[in-house]
Amino acid sequence: MITLYDLVFQADRRPSPFCWRAKYALAHKGLKWTEVPVGFTEKNKIAFADSKTVPVIKDGDTPVKDSWAIAQHLDRAYGEKPLFKDEPARTHALFVNGWCDTAVNGALFPLVVGDLYDRVRPEDQAYILESRGKRLGTTDLATFQAAAREKGMPALRAALEPARRVLNAQKFLAGDAPGYTDYILLSPFLWAYSVSPLKLLAEDDVVYAWRERMLDLFDGMGRKAKGA
Amino acid sequence: MITLYDLVFQADRRPSPFCWRAKYALAHKGLKWTEVPVGFTEKNKIAFADSKTVPVIKDGDTPVKDSWAIAQHLDRAYGEKPLFKDEPARTHALFVNGWCDTAVNGALFPLVVGDLYDRVRPEDQAYILESRGKRLGTTDLATFQAAAREKGMPALRAALEPARRVLNAQKFLAGDAPGYTDYILLSPFLWAYSVSPLKLLAEDDVVYAWRERMLDLFDGMGRKAKGA
Repeated sequence: MITLYDLVFQADRRPSPFCWRAKYALAHKGLKWTEVPVGFTEKNKIAFADSKTVPVIKDGDTPVKDSWAIAQHLDRAYGEKPLFKDEPARTHALFVNGWCDTAVNGALFPLVVGDLYDRVRPEDQAYILESRGKRLGTTDLATFQAAAREKGMPALRAALEPARRVLNAQKFLAGDAPGYTDYILLSPFLWAYSVSPLKLLAEDDVVYAWRERMLDLFDGMGRKAKGA
Repeated sequence: MITLYDLVFQADRRPSPFCWRAKYALAHKGLKWTEVPVGFTEKNKIAFADSKTVPVIKDGDTPVKDSWAIAQHLDRAYGEKPLFKDEPARTHALFVNGWCDTAVNGALFPLVVGDLYDRVRPEDQAYILESRGKRLGTTDLATFQAAAREKGMPALRAALEPARRVLNAQKFLAGDAPGYTDYILLSPFLWAYSVSPLKLLAEDDVVYAWRERMLDLFDGMGRKAKGA
């Protein structure tokens, strides 16, 4: 019995890219889970796991926090359908994880921060304005976002170049079938998709076609997520 | 009999990061090669390979251009000590290659472009000033470089984060022993090292310790390269 503690916005939107990684890891392994929505100001719900951020899972009595640790736990606890078939595969995923967290999320965040703010639960808006405002040096997130989009769209698309080169040669980052590296890179797109109408990719980009394939997986799990 | 056509600067400096990838690939496989130095304005020397850029190799009668294609060729032609032990390893290297070419080289180039210019062969300086000046929008490369270093050093170090996360967990990007992904990432450091006294890494960075290990490989091949 696995419970996933998942970030929630207005209208039951579920934007957290790190929670999406956990959901795709669970789905890949064919595991079932139930979800507990957690607002930004409901950190008490995940205190049992000694965590201030989601995702957190409770697997039986075992709490596990952090998407990477969750993926490792799932492979240890459930041998079938491994997320990492060997040590080199784990290394590759660790590299892609670090790249996505910094290069991709870093390029994407300024482009959607205003849209994110607009769709946070009303009771969480003061929190997000303070924490993100501190990071960005402004609380006028709409103006910041509009300015960021001018230079930031080409920068985001450029940041995706390593994935583009692989996807020019094969169907998924992991090969002929999707794997954890694909779930990692899908996650920032689902983050944006859940809150923003912004079109991040040109339709003739191989990353666009890959994303379509990814959204179809697991009975359209990502595609069904509430959009902007 | 393998000949490597290698970019040459003043005082026999050999900065090209792409040529360094080819040299480490050759050394990894235990192959011997001779080098033909090629200045920026000596493209006639590599016209036989239908290439305008180095590295180019001539392996017997077979010309091969482009560092990635050279690595593939060497594994096909010489089965021993593979650079890519299987298809997932090749995929990982392709991803790291794309990342290094764009994120790392892109962050590094502005920081050393003035030093590069100063050490180009005198007869190649007009060429480099025109081609790089066009890309950067200025021909005052010294001023551009000085300004770039203020913001650019933290950006370069941040860009290395995916490698840092892997090197926190293991000795080389490829695992317990160095592999092609390590040669890829070493190459921009050798590029800078051959022309610039700039200290790119903090000494307590795991990437710094990794670079020291890399410079020791193959009888100190990289360490012996002429520095700034």
